[in-house]
Amino acid sequence: MSGFNFNVTIIAVGKIKEDYLRSACSEYIKRLGAYGKANVIEISESRLPDNPGAAQCAAALETEAKGILSAVPKGNAVIALCIEGKCMTSEEFSRKLADFSAQGKSGVSVIIGSSFGLSKSVKSAADLRLSMSPMTFPHQLARVMAAEQLYRAMSIANNGKYHK
Amino acid sequence: MSGFNFNVTIIAVGKIKEDYLRSACSEYIKRLGAYGKANVIEISESRLPDNPGAAQCAAALETEAKGILSAVPKGNAVIALCIEGKCMTSEEFSRKLADFSAQGKSGVSVIIGSSFGLSKSVKSAADLRLSMSPMTFPHQLARVMAAEQLYRAMSIANNGKYHK
Repeated sequence: MSGFNFNVTIIAVGKIKEDYLRSACSEYIKRLGAYGKANVIEISESRLPDNPGAAQCAAALETEAKGILSAVPKGNAVIALCIEGKCMTSEEFSRKLADFSAQGKSGVSVIIGSSFGLSKSVKSAADLRLSMSPMTFPHQLARVMAAEQLYRAMSIANNGKYHK
Repeated sequence: MSGFNFNVTIIAVGKIKEDYLRSACSEYIKRLGAYGKANVIEISESRLPDNPGAAQCAAALETEAKGILSAVPKGNAVIALCIEGKCMTSEEFSRKLADFSAQGKSGVSVIIGSSFGLSKSVKSAADLRLSMSPMTFPHQLARVMAAEQLYRAMSIANNGKYHK
């Protein structure tokens, strides 16, 4: 491999149930393999009753947070996807990955919570809080979108033909 | 059908090649059927040589524009997806659809161009220019994202459980 290489891990809470979204995500993960190690780690979603209270939600998110943070590969930059995060263009996102690499990071972990979001502990541990859109997307589709943006970012950084 | 009903047409340039993205889009179109007629109209992409010039691109987009605008069902509001469009939340998008309905529109047509975008004539004919994200997504994935947002918007307007 030549050019800019960077390892990518997507850490996601819960499983993708729909085959078609799983296939879409796998396709971008496979393509990311051209630029470094790329994989998805799924963290078990904490079970909650219907209409859970705020305290129950917070406790569940904290349990998930422990699993998430222990799954981050050593030396990785951490990006938490959340609606209050920073919006950026694909070019800016690509430069951000290059910045992380220049800072000596071994790769990037992108964290996608469940439909209940992410705990404060994950958000504050993140090097970047990112919002892909002010619109709300299902977390399964967000995983496909994140995988595509990571592939696009790596392609931009390597002057690939994918992004125009 | 009770509650807020609205017809939805997605007018997209080019075909979705990937089965998994086609399946994802179909799923949301099927679900939109609960709120009115929902369908996708694919417009043929004009053929261009590799590395086309600006004039060649503009001519191709104008040809596509004729097909797009003639496909819009009578009385529909028109939304053009473009990077310079307005960003909004899912709740704002839902209210926008309700506003169109209150203005007497029969439904909404959401237009998604090819990777070369949309012609000025389409953008200026639109009642709303919408950007789902400052990031660039492939137009096939944008079609899935738009279908999901339309379903989410209709669910919000009908106090459905899908959006939380």
